Amino acid sequence: MSARCLAPRGLEAALRKIGDERYHHLHPFHQRLHSGGCTIDEVRAWALNRYCYQRTVPLKDAAILARMDDVELRRIWRQRIHDHDGEIGDAPEGGLRRWLVLTDGLGLDRKYIVSMDGALPAVRFACGAYLQFVRERSLLEAIASSLTEMFSPMIIQQRVAGMLAHYDFITEETLRYFDHRMSEAPRDADWTLHYVKEHARTPQTQKAVLEALKFKCGMLWAQLDAIEHVYVNGAPAPGAWAPGTGVTEPMT
Amino acid sequence: MSARCLAPRGLEAALRKIGDERYHHLHPFHQRLHSGGCTIDEVRAWALNRYCYQRTVPLKDAAILARMDDVELRRIWRQRIHDHDGEIGDAPEGGLRRWLVLTDGLGLDRKYIVSMDGALPAVRFACGAYLQFVRERSLLEAIASSLTEMFSPMIIQQRVAGMLAHYDFITEETLRYFDHRMSEAPRDADWTLHYVKEHARTPQTQKAVLEALKFKCGMLWAQLDAIEHVYVNGAPAPGAWAPGTGVTEPMT
Repeated sequence: MSARCLAPRGLEAALRKIGDERYHHLHPFHQRLHSGGCTIDEVRAWALNRYCYQRTVPLKDAAILARMDDVELRRIWRQRIHDHDGEIGDAPEGGLRRWLVLTDGLGLDRKYIVSMDGALPAVRFACGAYLQFVRERSLLEAIASSLTEMFSPMIIQQRVAGMLAHYDFITEETLRYFDHRMSEAPRDADWTLHYVKEHARTPQTQKAVLEALKFKCGMLWAQLDAIEHVYVNGAPAPGAWAPGTGVTEPMT
Repeated sequence: MSARCLAPRGLEAALRKIGDERYHHLHPFHQRLHSGGCTIDEVRAWALNRYCYQRTVPLKDAAILARMDDVELRRIWRQRIHDHDGEIGDAPEGGLRRWLVLTDGLGLDRKYIVSMDGALPAVRFACGAYLQFVRERSLLEAIASSLTEMFSPMIIQQRVAGMLAHYDFITEETLRYFDHRMSEAPRDADWTLHYVKEHARTPQTQKAVLEALKFKCGMLWAQLDAIEHVYVNGAPAPGAWAPGTGVTEPMT
C-alpha cells in the first residue's frame, strides 16, 4: 500500500480486490459444503461452530453502536441488532433464532448449541478477536470490518442452491436464515461502503480500512480452517465436539 | 465436574489430568517437530508463529501484575516479566531476545519476525484471547492459566534432544531459550500450583481454575493446529507467510 490517496472509486476497487483474494468463498471447506461433499456430521460441525460467529454479530454491532456519538448513525446502525436479535416474542424471529432453525434441522440440541460447549477454541478466539477489534480500533475501522457483507450475497446464493440440491437433510425451511440475509446484507453493505468512501479520505485512513477488511476476511477464513482441520482432515482436538454429542434426532 | 469440593491434593491431580489429556505435547505437529520430520520451512513457520506467543507472555504477565493489589504477590510475579523482557542493555537478554536467536539461526529476518506480518491470523487470535482472558477473568483464573508451566519441562527436554539430533540447522546456541526455561518454568509452576491450591477452596473456584487450564491448553493447541493445517497439510491461507519471505540467509 503506497502513501498515495485513492479516489473513492479507487478505494472501492481496492476493497473489492481484497474480497476477490481473501473472502471465504475461496475456502475449500465452503466448496466442499456447497457441492455436496460434506457428511452430515461435517455440516453439523460447521453449523455448530458458526453459531459462535452468529452470536458474535449482534454483540459487535452493539459495541459499535456504543461508540457512535452521532444519533443519526445510531438510528441506522441499530437495525442490524434488530435483524439478528429479533423482537420480544416470536416474530420477527431474527437471525440468531433462524440459525437455530438450521441446527434444529440438523438434529442438534438447542441448549447444547447455545452453550457453545462444543465450539472449537480457534472459532471462539476468532470471534473474540472480532469483538476486540470493534471495541479497540477507530470507529471507521470498526464499521469497515463489516464490509465483508459486500461479498456475502454471492456465497449465499451458491450455498442455498448447492445445499438444497445435494443434501436430503436440508430444506428451504431450515435455510431461511439466508433468505433474510439476501436483502439485509446488500442494504447494510451499500450503506457501509458509502460511509467508508466518505470518511476514509487520507492515505492513513484508507490503509486502515483496507486492513480492517483483511482482518475480517482472516477471521472468517480461520474459522473454516479450524473446522476443516478437525472434522475433514480428522485431526484430534481435545474437548472438541465429536459426532453424536448433542444430537437429539438421529438423521443419518 | 461435580459440585463436590476437592482436597488440595485432589485438585492438583485434576489439574495434572488436564495436562495429560490436553497439553500440546500430544499434538502431532510437536511429534513431527521433535522427531525430525519437519522441513526447515515447517520449523521456520513454527518459530515465526510462536514468536507471536512469546511476545504475548510478558504482556499477559504485566496485565496480571496490574491486577495484583498485594505487593507481596507483585514482588514475586514481576520476575516473570524480567525473565522474558531481559534487562536494559544486553544481559541478561531475556526470553524474547533468546527466541530471536532461534529465528536468526533459522535465517529469518528479525524485523520481519517482530512485525508479526507473517503470523497466521489464528495464532494472533489465540494470543489475543489469552490476553483478554487474564484481563477479564478473576485474578485466580488468570494466575491458574499459567499452570501449563507444570508440563513444559517434559516437552522442552524432548524438543531440545530431538531437534539437536535431527536438524543440522539447529544448534545448542540457537536453542538457548529453552535452557533458561528449564529452570524458570518449574520455579514458576511450583509457586502457582501452591497459590492455586491455597486459594481455590470452593467447588466454584476449583471448577474455574480447571477451566482456566483447559482454556490455556486449548489456546496452545489451536496455534499448532493452524500451523499444521497451513504448512504441513499445505492448505492455502491468504496473506500467510510463504517459504522464502523474510528469509535472509538461505539455509536449505
